[in-house]
Amino acid sequence: MVMTRELFPLVGVDIALFCVGDESLRVMLVRRAQAPHAKRWALPGGILKPHLDSSLESAARRVLAEKVSIELPLVEEVRTFSGPDRDPRGWSVSVLFYALLPLDKTSAVVKSKIEALEWADALSTDHKLAFDHSEHLSCAVQKLRAKVAADVLPLHLLPEKFTLRQLQRVTEIILGHPLDKSSFRRRLKESRDLVELDEYVRGPQRPAQLFRASESFSF
Amino acid sequence: MVMTRELFPLVGVDIALFCVGDESLRVMLVRRAQAPHAKRWALPGGILKPHLDSSLESAARRVLAEKVSIELPLVEEVRTFSGPDRDPRGWSVSVLFYALLPLDKTSAVVKSKIEALEWADALSTDHKLAFDHSEHLSCAVQKLRAKVAADVLPLHLLPEKFTLRQLQRVTEIILGHPLDKSSFRRRLKESRDLVELDEYVRGPQRPAQLFRASESFSF
Repeated sequence: MVMTRELFPLVGVDIALFCVGDESLRVMLVRRAQAPHAKRWALPGGILKPHLDSSLESAARRVLAEKVSIELPLVEEVRTFSGPDRDPRGWSVSVLFYALLPLDKTSAVVKSKIEALEWADALSTDHKLAFDHSEHLSCAVQKLRAKVAADVLPLHLLPEKFTLRQLQRVTEIILGHPLDKSSFRRRLKESRDLVELDEYVRGPQRPAQLFRASESFSF
Repeated sequence: MVMTRELFPLVGVDIALFCVGDESLRVMLVRRAQAPHAKRWALPGGILKPHLDSSLESAARRVLAEKVSIELPLVEEVRTFSGPDRDPRGWSVSVLFYALLPLDKTSAVVKSKIEALEWADALSTDHKLAFDHSEHLSCAVQKLRAKVAADVLPLHLLPEKFTLRQLQRVTEIILGHPLDKSSFRRRLKESRDLVELDEYVRGPQRPAQLFRASESFSF
């Protein structure tokens, strides 16, 4: 077994599952039940199972399915982390993915009996996570921000129907700064990713129209 | 051995090494000497060697060092490809990188006796490459284009000293369309990535000033 472990690195996946809550970007952390790094907080992850998984992405979806009871539309690769020292079990490769959970689906997160779950502030730099997961988290946040900064709307983080006010707020939370309302609205008018609905909710001053993501939207 | 191959996937790296030549974006292909896919053209690649490599990127640099006699400044991860069917040897992970070779360094490419090398048109879709390397190539081109489209200057593809005319041409070749000269020049004036030199070469009408990348430039 020692010989084969020298020839074949350990291959796993880790996932930064984001949602927006309490006016901030949140990431799911789990407290590890087993060694290595037992009792420490980490991103959820698992070892690739070649007999079960048809790809690294499907491994990430399998690991997520143990934590979240809904199918997530978006699971996207961020980058790999690798080397002899990042896991005490030996030379290892971790492929990091991020996934986005809509605002109204956090109740779909299933807390298993043996481990503790937490929605931590994703932008805080205070997390001392297991393995190299603090670096994982900052890379995942950076990728998410870069997409939103490049004008991709973070519709996967919103409920199925949402107001433009909600959309602007989620966008601002990810970017970490306020946006000018009139230029943001102008941009949304030209967007093919939004579908107007003939439904309204009570707004702060007057009824606010609801929108949904178009079928062709991709993050 | 069969059991371990079921538990541990094969992990390798593949590299799309780009340069600009003959007014087009070129990618290095090698003709495979050994099975699987012997005699077919492929991106250069190799199996991760945990006892030699300190990371997947250093594996990519090791594989490149067998082909190119200079240290390449830029070797960047594109994404992973994985699954049970992409390599006849079993469940495998390939981590794709791209690297950029400056215009005046193509002579640094060492042709080994046992394999044939070719600089193929990277934008042609006619390549029927071994494994899933045709898809690798199109993903690497897409990543390179996205960077250049997001206004990152492709300075790694230029010689150490270059004219603005050369820079515009290389940028146009990658993007696949001409750029307006005056707005491109305006953008370059504001760029912190360029350093003016007090050196000139003969230009089409008058002497053309030479430039180099600033120390802080990163692609």
